[in-house]
Amino acid sequence: MSDALGQVKAIIFDVFGTVVDWRGSILRELEEVGQTHGIDANWSEFADKWRAGYNEGSRAFLLEKQPWKKADLLHWERLNLLKANYGLDRLSEAELRHLNKAWHRLTPWKDSVKGLTRLKQKYMIGTLSNGDNGLLVHMAKNAGLPWDVIMGAENFGSYKPDPKVYLGAVDLLGYETHEVMVAACHLSDLYNARKNGLRAGFIVRPDEFGDSDREPDLVGDERIDVHATDFIDFAEKMGA
Amino acid sequence: MSDALGQVKAIIFDVFGTVVDWRGSILRELEEVGQTHGIDANWSEFADKWRAGYNEGSRAFLLEKQPWKKADLLHWERLNLLKANYGLDRLSEAELRHLNKAWHRLTPWKDSVKGLTRLKQKYMIGTLSNGDNGLLVHMAKNAGLPWDVIMGAENFGSYKPDPKVYLGAVDLLGYETHEVMVAACHLSDLYNARKNGLRAGFIVRPDEFGDSDREPDLVGDERIDVHATDFIDFAEKMGA
Repeated sequence: MSDALGQVKAIIFDVFGTVVDWRGSILRELEEVGQTHGIDANWSEFADKWRAGYNEGSRAFLLEKQPWKKADLLHWERLNLLKANYGLDRLSEAELRHLNKAWHRLTPWKDSVKGLTRLKQKYMIGTLSNGDNGLLVHMAKNAGLPWDVIMGAENFGSYKPDPKVYLGAVDLLGYETHEVMVAACHLSDLYNARKNGLRAGFIVRPDEFGDSDREPDLVGDERIDVHATDFIDFAEKMGA
Repeated sequence: MSDALGQVKAIIFDVFGTVVDWRGSILRELEEVGQTHGIDANWSEFADKWRAGYNEGSRAFLLEKQPWKKADLLHWERLNLLKANYGLDRLSEAELRHLNKAWHRLTPWKDSVKGLTRLKQKYMIGTLSNGDNGLLVHMAKNAGLPWDVIMGAENFGSYKPDPKVYLGAVDLLGYETHEVMVAACHLSDLYNARKNGLRAGFIVRPDEFGDSDREPDLVGDERIDVHATDFIDFAEKMGA
């Protein structure tokens, strides 16, 4: 490890895509619901549109076009907007509420828990997610993610890429910026972390977007401090 | 367990006194510093005065007499105010900074980790403390406290007994008030929890105040849902 990496005390992780396979998990739940209720629909398309509701909701807040809303509410609103076109309006309110909580039940990539457990021995590990705290807490409990600290959008009243989020996390932990590394599979997140003085750990997740048109990030530039193929490789390279 | 208790999904703990032996821990560190530097002082009195700095700081904020300050800063200010009278002004800046972090190194009562680990199998477990998040995160990491969620004063921009803190925690977790229990060794905290619709678990900690004049709470009234002698007894009574 370089001198710079030797100074890292905490690693804070992007969650959606980096730690959990949100698209595969949501798709699985939708397909199950489809089978149970005899609905045949393009679940892959639905999953992407549902996810987009959250991204648009956070962007609308950043642009001051919309008040703060919890992830559960953004998911709920988008689900209700989409449901009729995908035959989901035949579900009861209770069934829809349960489906909405699929975002609490996202499953980790197979190397995530093992890699995090190793990293936790040497580093403070946490989340730095645009998800809200409640959702992240339930996801961690369901999936056995061994976080030392869960930090979400609510902690800082904003979303990434707002510098308030990166610097707020550093401040909450009581460290210096160069002592905190952001770990993510999205280069834009990592470049923003570096711009704010934090370190950047890149873990590729080539399957995040499955069969959709979106392309995963595969190669970072010199702003990346560590490139890793998965969380085990990442733990290895961080000396954990 | 009663029907009411059967509905509890999350247990959120007061930390100082209930989970960790703050006074014993601080006293030990002060005595060590005293021995190293050849200082003979009334460390017991010092510990209580140091702790009072935090309590007064949080009260001053609630009364709108003082802006928000982190626990580390409140401890640091009080330490600097007190140090000359107790011979601690002979410590270097680095030594004083290290001493100030004694609050990150508080040790749990001997039954705490074992009881929490049991409770975690059945419940969502977290903190609901007037400490700030950074301090609670470092304390958990140092002491091996297996929290699912760490909630401190910063999450809600206020301190207990402000209802915003109790209700904010319930909202963050996405539960109903009667599904969340506050666990504490201080009756006032528990009575406030009940006033806001939460459940109350009382664990006695007869040694919290050591040889000082302050009396620990030993017997609660009918507002208490569960009385326990320690965290093992509490886990037992909560069916965990």
